[in-house]
Amino acid sequence: MPVAGVELATVEAGIRYPNRRDLVAIRFAEGTQAAAVFTRNAFCAAPVIVARESLLQTAHQPRLLLINTGNANAGTGESGLTAARESCRAAAEQFGFSANEVLPFSTGVIGEDLPVDRIVNALPSLANGFDTAGWDSAAWGILTTDTKPKVASREFSAGDKTYALTGIAKGAGMLRPNMATMLAFLATDAPVAQPVLDSLLRRAVDQSFHRITVDGDTSTNDAVVLAATGAQGGSTCDASDQPLALALGEALDALTLELAQGLVKDGEGVTKLVQLDVRQGATSDECLQVAFTVAHSPLVKTALFAADPNWGRVLAAIGRAGLEELDVTKVAIAVDGQPIARAGCRAADYDEDAVAAVMSGDSFCISIDLGRGEANESVWTSDMSYDYVRINAEYRS
Amino acid sequence: MPVAGVELATVEAGIRYPNRRDLVAIRFAEGTQAAAVFTRNAFCAAPVIVARESLLQTAHQPRLLLINTGNANAGTGESGLTAARESCRAAAEQFGFSANEVLPFSTGVIGEDLPVDRIVNALPSLANGFDTAGWDSAAWGILTTDTKPKVASREFSAGDKTYALTGIAKGAGMLRPNMATMLAFLATDAPVAQPVLDSLLRRAVDQSFHRITVDGDTSTNDAVVLAATGAQGGSTCDASDQPLALALGEALDALTLELAQGLVKDGEGVTKLVQLDVRQGATSDECLQVAFTVAHSPLVKTALFAADPNWGRVLAAIGRAGLEELDVTKVAIAVDGQPIARAGCRAADYDEDAVAAVMSGDSFCISIDLGRGEANESVWTSDMSYDYVRINAEYRS
Repeated sequence: MPVAGVELATVEAGIRYPNRRDLVAIRFAEGTQAAAVFTRNAFCAAPVIVARESLLQTAHQPRLLLINTGNANAGTGESGLTAARESCRAAAEQFGFSANEVLPFSTGVIGEDLPVDRIVNALPSLANGFDTAGWDSAAWGILTTDTKPKVASREFSAGDKTYALTGIAKGAGMLRPNMATMLAFLATDAPVAQPVLDSLLRRAVDQSFHRITVDGDTSTNDAVVLAATGAQGGSTCDASDQPLALALGEALDALTLELAQGLVKDGEGVTKLVQLDVRQGATSDECLQVAFTVAHSPLVKTALFAADPNWGRVLAAIGRAGLEELDVTKVAIAVDGQPIARAGCRAADYDEDAVAAVMSGDSFCISIDLGRGEANESVWTSDMSYDYVRINAEYRS
Repeated sequence: MPVAGVELATVEAGIRYPNRRDLVAIRFAEGTQAAAVFTRNAFCAAPVIVARESLLQTAHQPRLLLINTGNANAGTGESGLTAARESCRAAAEQFGFSANEVLPFSTGVIGEDLPVDRIVNALPSLANGFDTAGWDSAAWGILTTDTKPKVASREFSAGDKTYALTGIAKGAGMLRPNMATMLAFLATDAPVAQPVLDSLLRRAVDQSFHRITVDGDTSTNDAVVLAATGAQGGSTCDASDQPLALALGEALDALTLELAQGLVKDGEGVTKLVQLDVRQGATSDECLQVAFTVAHSPLVKTALFAADPNWGRVLAAIGRAGLEELDVTKVAIAVDGQPIARAGCRAADYDEDAVAAVMSGDSFCISIDLGRGEANESVWTSDMSYDYVRINAEYRS
């Protein structure tokens, strides 16, 4: 769904491979406010450093996002920073902005020099390609080893106005709670002040992109950007408890969760989307600790791939998650409501065939009750297949 | 190498599969002292609970270790404890010991009832099989998905005496620092008091079995036992600074490291043994944190399998290891001395072909210099291959 005040252009710049859409520009109307969340990896890539600086310098009012795939411009030191700034400067000149109104984003191979000249050469054709209906093509243009574009939209209303919220995302490998080789670009045409956008985005990301994991790796380049153009009109929302913020927040939570789950489903070699509900924990943190320990266990992940209800592996992962004074006789495990373990042992009414049937589907929920409190958390993860190894042993990502 | 005062017997008890050596007994001479280290998994298995209790009840003087494969007797609750005790009681009766002089050890599938009757039925043939030369056969008898037996011996001297130290171990999957589905049984004929044995064993395990990882999973059943029969004579060593303790300690450190590296090499689907040296850390803990984060990264492990010098993945893993205020411009990476990255970037003299040649071997060392202190740690890990997925998707371990 188009978002008033947002135009997108996507071209083939030949950054790493020929005949592949690998350069995307997203242009915002004047006055657009933006919020962003970046990777927590200490080795953050040059474009992350530059985008963060430029956002601050422009009071969070970017005019253009310039996104390339094929090269992450990470692990490239000073020359990487120069390359990122040079790309932004050239794009700013092409489109009539100042250099720090252009934010760079890169994904692809780490440690190789960004081919700035190919980006610069592609700017004129980018300039001719802007379209408010360009979301689908842009969703293709930001992919690396993903197999499917991820686009989602929501409508929401406040007062007598109806607004659009649309986003695109890419993920695939190196997917982990602290953001991953994942990029997501979201925009709304509602008028929202930056601090409100920022808090809504942080909350949404924390419950969606920070709750997914494919392989536990965190990329150097992750970024999620939410822009509000205000082009649909209405009075500017400047507090998180106003009706517009509440409506946008609800739409944003749903949209980011849809995109995040889409990233897991399309993760490298993934055949199943598995929800892990960890319940009755003493704290949210310990629920997440258990959930991620289970989600990252290669033994659990290979059993998921085999649709094998090998609950001993789940139990062993819970036991090594590092919870103080865990009383294992209170732990229960179920799959889509089918009991598997109770009181730390196999459930008396465990029906292996029924559980295996559930697990042979492409999506199910494993619930783990810790029996020691009232905190609950959910995390979404995947199985680990032959293809995961094949893709990552063959692809220099 | 035989160890005076130690006899071993190995039989086929049909615990899970026919025609497979799956029950081992190790008998110690009277007066043997023992030390043991067990899994830190909160879900420790019934045999671990029973063995720990019995060691305390007998002042660490066990007479028999009874080890079965095919069934872990874990996640089996009260009935599992009863089964473990029942096996020990029957063996004690057969061999003329008290029940708590028999320590049980189990490895295999989790969550199924231990077939005590098959163990009991095999006791008479075990009784006929004891042999001081039984180490090799016992090394076969404790294997699960391992492909090779792991046996090692050392001689050491103190005063005018020469002593033997021999050990067997099994590992394969679920291998992680806090012990794993790994069992190791070590014995010496030197006369050593239990507190000395205990401190030597803890030090040796900490530098060997606690420094290896195949897949980051920790089993419910791990145990390492060191017994000293004293059958070779000499005066009893009762302090860690005596010549005998120093000589045994040195032999034990080398033996456990040899066995531990053997476990990694024979890990599920492993094609390479990789040493990770993390140097110049502020503390040992942070060196280990970096080493294990790199060792557990599926992206790093699949690149190792492909002999792909994809150093960006190593760098990304270092960056997400959670070190406070890591200055990435001080980080350097090398493989067997070949420079890869310096100052957080690709090294100017990086030679991809040379590094790929080193990585195509079956054993090499990746060194990571953090440039922030004087602590150093080493960890041994493996690659992740198609076979890892195949074995763990097919085998209910």
